[in-house]
Amino acid sequence: MTEERIVTAALLVIGDEILSGRTKDQNIGFIAEHLTSIGIRLQEVRVVPDVEGEIVAAVNALRAKYTYLFTTGGIGPTHDDITADSIGMAFGVSVSIDARAERVLRDYYGAKGLEVTPARLRMARLPAGAELIDNPVSAAPGFRVGNVIVMAGVPSIMQVMLACVTPTLDTGAALLSITIPVDRPESEIADAFSAHQQRYRDVAMGSYPLLRNGRPATDLVLRCSDLARLNDATATLKAALKL
Amino acid sequence: MTEERIVTAALLVIGDEILSGRTKDQNIGFIAEHLTSIGIRLQEVRVVPDVEGEIVAAVNALRAKYTYLFTTGGIGPTHDDITADSIGMAFGVSVSIDARAERVLRDYYGAKGLEVTPARLRMARLPAGAELIDNPVSAAPGFRVGNVIVMAGVPSIMQVMLACVTPTLDTGAALLSITIPVDRPESEIADAFSAHQQRYRDVAMGSYPLLRNGRPATDLVLRCSDLARLNDATATLKAALKL
Repeated sequence: MTEERIVTAALLVIGDEILSGRTKDQNIGFIAEHLTSIGIRLQEVRVVPDVEGEIVAAVNALRAKYTYLFTTGGIGPTHDDITADSIGMAFGVSVSIDARAERVLRDYYGAKGLEVTPARLRMARLPAGAELIDNPVSAAPGFRVGNVIVMAGVPSIMQVMLACVTPTLDTGAALLSITIPVDRPESEIADAFSAHQQRYRDVAMGSYPLLRNGRPATDLVLRCSDLARLNDATATLKAALKL
Repeated sequence: MTEERIVTAALLVIGDEILSGRTKDQNIGFIAEHLTSIGIRLQEVRVVPDVEGEIVAAVNALRAKYTYLFTTGGIGPTHDDITADSIGMAFGVSVSIDARAERVLRDYYGAKGLEVTPARLRMARLPAGAELIDNPVSAAPGFRVGNVIVMAGVPSIMQVMLACVTPTLDTGAALLSITIPVDRPESEIADAFSAHQQRYRDVAMGSYPLLRNGRPATDLVLRCSDLARLNDATATLKAALKL
């Protein structure tokens, strides 16, 4: 097996509306799938309310522990949008109107014949040292400070920001995965499956129960960054289960 | 205003499959909405992988901070189901076959003419002192230890467990909410909205941008446990925005 470089990430979802159930999060699954596909391993997600102390504590815990921390939410124009200030507080840097972001907003609203109100200008407030992340949808930029990547909460805007920032990210060995569908309940195959995991300790094996055509079935998922090893574990598991 | 009793909760979602994006979580939004409706305030969510140390650390951080901790995932029959052991570790108690849970499983599989294999019996392993939570769907119970409520990850099973445990929970003052739809982008109303929040500091006010009939619009959400105060803040906000 070759030397692997492991790149990890956490995601911090910021917003009362997710915790109240009013808004159903659509970003966790999207970001998880995207990071997995580019070779970044999402290791933890947290959802916290629009409370500065909670955001700062989570940012500092997560940015220290993982290669990257992605955040969603709280970068709009209203008083409950406190992500930029919280990130500034977490890094111990000032937060003020960024000239580059202000120009982006003035160009965008100017082209529409709209005034740049104090609320709109609030979206140009960034922590000192931030790099801008383009927002081709609605102009107000995301930003990056250190290893923390701050994106919008609106899914369509988050997705373009993630696309913009992706080419700048370090990535590591992608975790390859193979799914083996089994038409038996997981409790029938669990013993053999567990024995197989013991035999291949470097291949992560998960078992996911589901209904297939109305009957209890199982998806077995094997994950490893080494394709040959993954194929070997898959073939021997299929043989063991007589598939 | 009357004296309020505030009951809080956190949710811990356990599972590699959520972090890899393979499975899209459906439980966070459901649990958030349910808890809000019964007067329990969900304050934090975490998603962690199937790694004992990570689960134990999250359980101990969250159970100390909130009235209740709910968990989903990791209570099935396979080797990657390590929630019961992790909860036992977090509480410093032993984990072994529970006679009540074993009887439930033997009755369920016996009625189907199926053998209780070691894998199936694994689902009766509970931390010492656990109370069972019924699972009318597939028998294998959830459980409660102290203020920690452990449920399945499969949404249909989680939902019946949550229904079963709900009558046993302390609940507090429900946070009432009113949504005011506004057909203007949030950046146009943000200044007035922010001034209104300053005037009613005890009413939590959030602003959520969206597209309505293809045009930028905003939902303003006011939340407070005192209905009269909420109605007052709503009426004066509508007047301020000329709605």
